[in-house]
Amino acid sequence: MAISFSKTIETLLKNKKYSSLRDVLSSMNEADIAELFSDVKEESLPLLFRLLPKDLAADTFALMDSDEQELLIRGFSDNEIKEVFDELYVDDAVDIVEEMPANVVKRILQNTDSQTRSMINEILKYPEDSAGSLMTTDYISLRPKMTVQDAIKRIRRKIHEAETIYTCYVTDDNRKLLGYLSVRMLLLAQPDDKICDIMDETVICVHTLDDKENVAKDMNKYDFVAMPVVDDEGRLVGIVTFDDAIDVMQEEATEDIERMAAISPTEDSYFKTSDIKHAKNRIFWLLALMLSAAITGGILTKYEDATSAIPALAAFIPMLMSTGGNCGSQSSTLIISGMSTDEIKLKDYLKVAFMEFRVSLILSIVLAVLNGIRIWITEGDFLIALVVSLSIICIVIISQFIGCSLPMLAKKIKLDPAVMAAPLITTIVDAAAILIYFNIATRFFNI
Amino acid sequence: MAISFSKTIETLLKNKKYSSLRDVLSSMNEADIAELFSDVKEESLPLLFRLLPKDLAADTFALMDSDEQELLIRGFSDNEIKEVFDELYVDDAVDIVEEMPANVVKRILQNTDSQTRSMINEILKYPEDSAGSLMTTDYISLRPKMTVQDAIKRIRRKIHEAETIYTCYVTDDNRKLLGYLSVRMLLLAQPDDKICDIMDETVICVHTLDDKENVAKDMNKYDFVAMPVVDDEGRLVGIVTFDDAIDVMQEEATEDIERMAAISPTEDSYFKTSDIKHAKNRIFWLLALMLSAAITGGILTKYEDATSAIPALAAFIPMLMSTGGNCGSQSSTLIISGMSTDEIKLKDYLKVAFMEFRVSLILSIVLAVLNGIRIWITEGDFLIALVVSLSIICIVIISQFIGCSLPMLAKKIKLDPAVMAAPLITTIVDAAAILIYFNIATRFFNI
Repeated sequence: MAISFSKTIETLLKNKKYSSLRDVLSSMNEADIAELFSDVKEESLPLLFRLLPKDLAADTFALMDSDEQELLIRGFSDNEIKEVFDELYVDDAVDIVEEMPANVVKRILQNTDSQTRSMINEILKYPEDSAGSLMTTDYISLRPKMTVQDAIKRIRRKIHEAETIYTCYVTDDNRKLLGYLSVRMLLLAQPDDKICDIMDETVICVHTLDDKENVAKDMNKYDFVAMPVVDDEGRLVGIVTFDDAIDVMQEEATEDIERMAAISPTEDSYFKTSDIKHAKNRIFWLLALMLSAAITGGILTKYEDATSAIPALAAFIPMLMSTGGNCGSQSSTLIISGMSTDEIKLKDYLKVAFMEFRVSLILSIVLAVLNGIRIWITEGDFLIALVVSLSIICIVIISQFIGCSLPMLAKKIKLDPAVMAAPLITTIVDAAAILIYFNIATRFFNI
Repeated sequence: MAISFSKTIETLLKNKKYSSLRDVLSSMNEADIAELFSDVKEESLPLLFRLLPKDLAADTFALMDSDEQELLIRGFSDNEIKEVFDELYVDDAVDIVEEMPANVVKRILQNTDSQTRSMINEILKYPEDSAGSLMTTDYISLRPKMTVQDAIKRIRRKIHEAETIYTCYVTDDNRKLLGYLSVRMLLLAQPDDKICDIMDETVICVHTLDDKENVAKDMNKYDFVAMPVVDDEGRLVGIVTFDDAIDVMQEEATEDIERMAAISPTEDSYFKTSDIKHAKNRIFWLLALMLSAAITGGILTKYEDATSAIPALAAFIPMLMSTGGNCGSQSSTLIISGMSTDEIKLKDYLKVAFMEFRVSLILSIVLAVLNGIRIWITEGDFLIALVVSLSIICIVIISQFIGCSLPMLAKKIKLDPAVMAAPLITTIVDAAAILIYFNIATRFFNI
């Protein structure tokens, strides 16, 4: 749908139907406009953007891709920059500034009012993955002595700047966070009630330097629309809103998946990443795993005598390696995702290992019996079938043990457990599988 | 922290310090109480739960594990069931009912008021993964003719039942959705303003039968705190709140990761799944992949002559298979996660394939050169080094082609792309790697 729609818009633009275009765009949601803008030709963008009403323009701008934002800013007059950035919430402004080249940043900061500028600079100071870097300073604070009537007056005055009015924060004269008040509580109260009497004092907050992933997790746990951020002295410095928390959760999920496939995670999206960068993100693990696989190859040559004595043995190597790898990566995946949702904790190690052991018993017996029968029938050699089946039992049990242990070990030594996923587990298990197989085979065949 | 805290609570309970316990619990957030309750002994739970104030009790109950919920319900009097379930939001009540055995469900439905009961039954009718099953009917609806003053009065009256008051929905006499109104808009308006004059008519809504994953995606796109759900006639039947949308997003992410590791996804958490269920979730793919790996084994035996003529060839098989598998799974992972965030669409196939081709050229050359040199030095055999290096180039290029094509093919034929992840790709690529390797080797060595 979006495609034909963007063509219609461009036709309207070409025929200079500006007032109709303005009507169409004004009736749309900012997220849809941003999506539409990513589909139109680059040269149409500045004109289309200028057709938007002022507040819709800023909201749309915040949702556009950084490439398009840069294109627009480069074409903006100083006054246009001022208009857009003064409308933006501070956290969105910071996100944009972070993506722009230095000369564009300079122009932006020159053309915003001094208050916005100092707030942007404040947030830019915090480390990249901290709560501070994620927060906005556009929140509503109330004083404990205010009445509900005063508070509503203040909210109405601040409503255009504040990113959320659903939760207001009560602070003392030193900005120390005392409690919070939801709109729900305000609407239920009487006009003369004192804020300090109706506010909720069970304040849950995060520190400016807390990891943004934990902030998102806490917001999800408490179902918060906004989370207050305090500094070392307990002073309120900003809030993190739920839309940013959701973005963090999604980024982290994608990062985990990429790390589990032995890719170095990147902030850029697939198409925005250059070929060289793509290659860079993948080469490290490919090389490391290639070298480890060479060790497996070395082990294989050690058993050359066995395979030349009984050539049929070689046929089962890929199947044994692959089954071991799959069992190991199933276990490691379950443990990694269990740890990322905090269901599985380090202290549960014995419980996990025992659980995986029981599951591996069931799996290994089913796989061994079915496979043993298959080999016995197709190869007509009971001894080979027995050797392969026994190997499967040992390989499955050991693979699941390795698969569940390594991610927890990684966490224990403060590494990201996602690194211990399929690729690494598979490589380790491959070597183990060959060792187990030939050890069993040499015993049975006396070679 | 939680551990020692739960011990303190149990000591207080043993010493019958009920009023202090009540004070401690009342000062806590419901999410923290639910976490605490999961750490205390089962037998302490009913008593502790009864110490909670009524509204906190219901909020906490909604956040507890279903095992603990069932334990409590079984101990509840009919009156206690009524008290808790009448306090719950309908969507939470439905979530609980869905997890309970039939006899418990019967007792719950017998002891809720007829309105709640009919709303629960209404939501239970919708298919499991639909917007309808996720929604709550506890929303606030307004009429277009109301004044702002009337609206605020209505909101104050409904405030205890409504799950969110941040967005109110404007409907006509037939419940048809006409527009929405945020609390922000209400606070900005004058008391005499008509709702129909200030409401936003650009209604974005979902259908009762829409997939809940798409609902969550839309809510994320539009940064909505709540999404209205309409039926075939455009009548408002409920809303989905952001906390449920976040849960859906997390479930889907976990499901994707599990599917990518060849595990059939389950709704239950790791420890709650029985051994047999764990084994069942994993056995299908293990068997399927085991059989496919047997084919690879068959191919390998076809080249027995080659390996017995030049035994050194066998040493590189694990490395070539593993490199191919890793390249293929890197590509497939990037494509799968790109498609899940809608960055990569089916129409981008040629763009993706060309990008992966360019990246595979870079990667294959780096890997081939480094590995070729290593083999030449350690084995002292230039021809073997050349054969392995040429094989690497072909294997990497083909693996990445398979890795990026299969997930998109899956999507094209309406399968879940996540099925085409590492395990399946690895198995396919293994066979391809052996074929390529021996084809090149037999050519160079004339065997």
